[in-house]
Amino acid sequence: MGKCIYHPDRETGYICMKHNIYLCEECLKCRDPDIYCKFRPSCPIHFISKKGFKEPEIEAAQKKHTVVFEPGHQTIRVVEGTSLLTAAQNADVYINASCNGKGACGKCKLIVQSGRVSGEGTALLTDKEKEKGYVLACQTIIQDDITVRIPEETLEKKLKAAGMGKAATEKLMGLVDKIEPLVENIPLQLDLPSLSDTVSDLDRVRRQLKKAGYDISKMSTNIKVMRQLAESIRNDHFKVIASVLWKICSAEIVAVLPVHEARKSLGLAIDLGTTSIVVYIVDMADGAVLSATSAHNSQAACGDDVINRIICAEKDGVNKLKKMALSTINNLVKEAIDSIHADHQQIENIVISGNTIMTHLVLGIEARYIRREPYIPTVTEFPILKAEEIGIRAAAHAGVFVMPGPASYVGGDIVSGVLYTGFYQHQELTLFIDIGTNGEIVLGNNEFLITAACSAGPAFEGGGIRWGMRAEDGAIEKITLTPVTFEPDYSTVDNKPARGICGTGMIDLLSEMLLKKVIDQNGKFIIGTDHPRYTLFNGEPAFILEFAEKTGLDEHIIFTQSDIKSLTLSKAAIYAGFNILLEQVGMDFSSIQQMIITGGFGQFLDIEKAVTIGLLPDIPREKFHYMGNSSVAGAYMALLSNTSRQKAVAISNAMTYLDFSTNTKFMEEFTRAQFLPHTDKKLFPSVHIN
Amino acid sequence: MGKCIYHPDRETGYICMKHNIYLCEECLKCRDPDIYCKFRPSCPIHFISKKGFKEPEIEAAQKKHTVVFEPGHQTIRVVEGTSLLTAAQNADVYINASCNGKGACGKCKLIVQSGRVSGEGTALLTDKEKEKGYVLACQTIIQDDITVRIPEETLEKKLKAAGMGKAATEKLMGLVDKIEPLVENIPLQLDLPSLSDTVSDLDRVRRQLKKAGYDISKMSTNIKVMRQLAESIRNDHFKVIASVLWKICSAEIVAVLPVHEARKSLGLAIDLGTTSIVVYIVDMADGAVLSATSAHNSQAACGDDVINRIICAEKDGVNKLKKMALSTINNLVKEAIDSIHADHQQIENIVISGNTIMTHLVLGIEARYIRREPYIPTVTEFPILKAEEIGIRAAAHAGVFVMPGPASYVGGDIVSGVLYTGFYQHQELTLFIDIGTNGEIVLGNNEFLITAACSAGPAFEGGGIRWGMRAEDGAIEKITLTPVTFEPDYSTVDNKPARGICGTGMIDLLSEMLLKKVIDQNGKFIIGTDHPRYTLFNGEPAFILEFAEKTGLDEHIIFTQSDIKSLTLSKAAIYAGFNILLEQVGMDFSSIQQMIITGGFGQFLDIEKAVTIGLLPDIPREKFHYMGNSSVAGAYMALLSNTSRQKAVAISNAMTYLDFSTNTKFMEEFTRAQFLPHTDKKLFPSVHIN
Repeated sequence: MGKCIYHPDRETGYICMKHNIYLCEECLKCRDPDIYCKFRPSCPIHFISKKGFKEPEIEAAQKKHTVVFEPGHQTIRVVEGTSLLTAAQNADVYINASCNGKGACGKCKLIVQSGRVSGEGTALLTDKEKEKGYVLACQTIIQDDITVRIPEETLEKKLKAAGMGKAATEKLMGLVDKIEPLVENIPLQLDLPSLSDTVSDLDRVRRQLKKAGYDISKMSTNIKVMRQLAESIRNDHFKVIASVLWKICSAEIVAVLPVHEARKSLGLAIDLGTTSIVVYIVDMADGAVLSATSAHNSQAACGDDVINRIICAEKDGVNKLKKMALSTINNLVKEAIDSIHADHQQIENIVISGNTIMTHLVLGIEARYIRREPYIPTVTEFPILKAEEIGIRAAAHAGVFVMPGPASYVGGDIVSGVLYTGFYQHQELTLFIDIGTNGEIVLGNNEFLITAACSAGPAFEGGGIRWGMRAEDGAIEKITLTPVTFEPDYSTVDNKPARGICGTGMIDLLSEMLLKKVIDQNGKFIIGTDHPRYTLFNGEPAFILEFAEKTGLDEHIIFTQSDIKSLTLSKAAIYAGFNILLEQVGMDFSSIQQMIITGGFGQFLDIEKAVTIGLLPDIPREKFHYMGNSSVAGAYMALLSNTSRQKAVAISNAMTYLDFSTNTKFMEEFTRAQFLPHTDKKLFPSVHIN
Repeated sequence: MGKCIYHPDRETGYICMKHNIYLCEECLKCRDPDIYCKFRPSCPIHFISKKGFKEPEIEAAQKKHTVVFEPGHQTIRVVEGTSLLTAAQNADVYINASCNGKGACGKCKLIVQSGRVSGEGTALLTDKEKEKGYVLACQTIIQDDITVRIPEETLEKKLKAAGMGKAATEKLMGLVDKIEPLVENIPLQLDLPSLSDTVSDLDRVRRQLKKAGYDISKMSTNIKVMRQLAESIRNDHFKVIASVLWKICSAEIVAVLPVHEARKSLGLAIDLGTTSIVVYIVDMADGAVLSATSAHNSQAACGDDVINRIICAEKDGVNKLKKMALSTINNLVKEAIDSIHADHQQIENIVISGNTIMTHLVLGIEARYIRREPYIPTVTEFPILKAEEIGIRAAAHAGVFVMPGPASYVGGDIVSGVLYTGFYQHQELTLFIDIGTNGEIVLGNNEFLITAACSAGPAFEGGGIRWGMRAEDGAIEKITLTPVTFEPDYSTVDNKPARGICGTGMIDLLSEMLLKKVIDQNGKFIIGTDHPRYTLFNGEPAFILEFAEKTGLDEHIIFTQSDIKSLTLSKAAIYAGFNILLEQVGMDFSSIQQMIITGGFGQFLDIEKAVTIGLLPDIPREKFHYMGNSSVAGAYMALLSNTSRQKAVAISNAMTYLDFSTNTKFMEEFTRAQFLPHTDKKLFPSVHIN
């Protein structure tokens, strides 16, 4: 028996087995689209009553169809009228849908192989595609039993491993002086009870903890521990392992196990990115990273950027987004745990490092006020939680430290980055940038920290770019163009046939197009319309980067006027951000003693080319330091060390947040930076465009 | 989806809707009687799988029958071979079963009206009864669809109200100086957020709490609060009520509600007795008792005394006993809450006062080692819990203080009694006795407290006595006998026709039989076998207290030689306990400055007659003070006052526990006291038996 999700005071036997939620009778009968009906169009809802299996009458009246997704043969029953995208989401079939079903990005392409569908035409598909049965999943309505094929370009590709465990161990081990886990496992030999020593089992444990030097006055005990305690302590002759969860200013005995059941205690460092999620499994005894995995955040089906995620949460409920993130995390945990032949019950320590919106959503916390003036987050500093409160695949009692963040648009991932890169402890003035979906900047040293987010947008991650994609297999990541012919020399991720362009490829391409005079400093095309690599797409000029016959695709890979504009806006936002932050403290780029670049994106960044297009400032190149995924590295430190956890809180509290959304100077600077490299040539003395 | 009750690491879709437990596939298929099968004989088990309704095959092969209990027409499907007692327990039909199905007490009488049953004969039913279709539920096996009637004497009768709210208010209000609830509701007017004040919602609440003088450094926040916080604070223009649960050395924000949703905060004082449970609903603003209800602890179906309860928990799992106690508590809460037209969500404070075994069982804590040498309880001092962790009908976040107890056989109810009666604060040497099922004694003053339990047994509560019963309607509670004819003059509870004898009636009767020479000081019958009130029952002498024709029954109400023996053993155990406790500190009865008698039983006790049979010591009668149900009164104090809660812990820690079970002196004293009033006449100078 569970409690109704909308009326937590009501017990009910009605459960939707698909959504794993309970509904009371009232909600079950309710036709309010915010309550019951919102699950209806999309899900083959199964209600089960106390008396057995029951389909609500309102449901029975509706026609249902079977949808089969190939390859993989994933099958789902849906109500007639459901969109293909919704069906895919509910069948846990991942398909790319950057714009969250608005029909704008054209990425959710599927091929209908059999069965009848309806839907409007779209300009985002070529005639050739339409002939072959291509549709956009979000624009297509199911009218029949159908079979659809997910084409290569729509299928999720595994991200290049963010760094396997061994590499991560080499990079990170030794970063903390002393290992102080959230959940400490303390071996105890209890005194044997006798008629002259009849204290309770629990007091016997507490007495021994006190003898071992622990402050038991602040230590409470979980009721589950009390329930199993009598058996646990007698199971191995009063030799036990007591697990204590250390909270901010109290502690809780969360487990007591017979000593022979003790296993290696593991930790989980999670970088919860908007685009991708990285998970490290850490040996809590020595800090070795035993396994590392990463995958796309499956919330991406609700849109590429945080604003679309919030909108989706407002529409469909925050629980949907919570479950999506958890499903990615838990699949990664399973994969990582399986790879080392461990059990997820061994995970007793967890750190989550994510931006403020990601953190809200994964915890199921309302995020709608983050996108409304005055942009207030619900929570920025979190108590120590337990895995069971969140739903992470780990021991129920695992302690969870959520990285605190100073503001709505600068979150725990940035605090993690500052913690890991360590510049907050030194005198050198440092400019820190995390080029992910958001583009957060921190300026400061051991005396001050000022921070802002630039709303760089998803362009660098492939969003809003015709052939843009993430750094997956087949993504063009490095490019040079031969002068005059503009013949490209490029490499792709994993050397697979080109399928699109990722962020670093775009920077290379834009820089090359500028230097080789395909475009001018306004980003306008200047090559002849008769050049073999010039074409028109939807009426606007475009550059043919690769011809269809050289790719595995039916079409040329092109880079359009709009793509150039999107990329230019993104880089302008970041550069303007640097400028305003410096101005705020009365400095300029010459004061910068080091510039730290972090983020998954930065991994393959060509600094020189990034300066050429005006994304990074024209300062001595030796000042640039690429430090990889600093969010997961900071999470790793906080996982192992209480000092690091305390420092993270201190960093978050020390940060002054500057809001650009209401800053007119930022808008001016942003406009000035929409030139390649910049309106003010003096700012880029080393860039020569003639 | 839930977790398997036996393998908490496994998620499963199989649920037994009757027992509300999840079982994994392995357990489902398992034929180990300790796992799956134990639910089978007794319950029409319904397993529901992800794919809909499913009956396990092992189940399908078994024949099932329908059992209808009248009056009430409660119906249940059971597997052939189930006993009638088990069927009744699973149908939540309360029937009296003092011996927990051993066939020894003869109390679980039912009348089979239709259908075939099997079972052995029993000497505990008269031929007349057998003719009418009477059976003992525990000895009767279901072989067919049957209808049974529960006769008057087996039906549960509501206890005389333990004192309505108003009377309780008069007695208790003003006992505490200052009201300090576990969950404090703090009204706050938050600052409105703006672009120049963008702290998070949670920090806004915490900041205001700090301004209001609260120490927020030790205050964590429940994740449920965080999830609803954004809406809650905006719902009534940033005017909120923050509810803070104060724990031993930390605090937790457990709710934040818009101020217009605030309602009267209620408290629940629970006296969790072995025999009966008393519940007070208290207004946390002023301490008024708004409602008071009581009922039998439905665990009584598993036996009258704590040892039988532990045995039952070992056999059927502690969860069964937990659910039984909770079902009684929650029904009482519903009744009490309904009577004042309130909502159980208003209950935010709870205190449970019970003996150590009751406390273990209601919390689902293993109790088996309590009955095995060296008699170790699992827990004696509890952290502050929440209602949702226990399953009490109240706000999920309601704080629960469980009265601590010093030892396995002296528990929180006695600490409650000491707290309420207050003698621990004064110099007067006090002997305290709670005559319930256990018979706990405390001797002491403001310098020392020594305590013991006498294992008085259930005789005073009607257990093991042929016509013994609780103080329910129709119980004979006061008796005098006319000399020679032994014509009784008696009164019954609620003046209903006599149905049996309760504890006070038995003391009166034994005293009268002794004084009027029905029996001698050994308890042996001395009246002539030809006396109209002399009879034989199962071959032993018995006294006819009332003839069948004067009762509503088919039989005479009698008092047998065995009944006299049982009662004598009980009183001897208590008196011996007094003696040993005094001896332990080098004192005797003359040192006693006051004697406090508490417990529901004591309510109608005739002190003079209790001295006559040697239950109470022969000391000046003005030293005796009857103080009613001190367990619920202590719970009431702890509910309202943190000082009282701290004092309760201090009392429990200060108590020295003496174990009689291994005390040879106790055995000697016990033997000496098995005479009426006592082997040593000098101890009872005022009792004249000639």
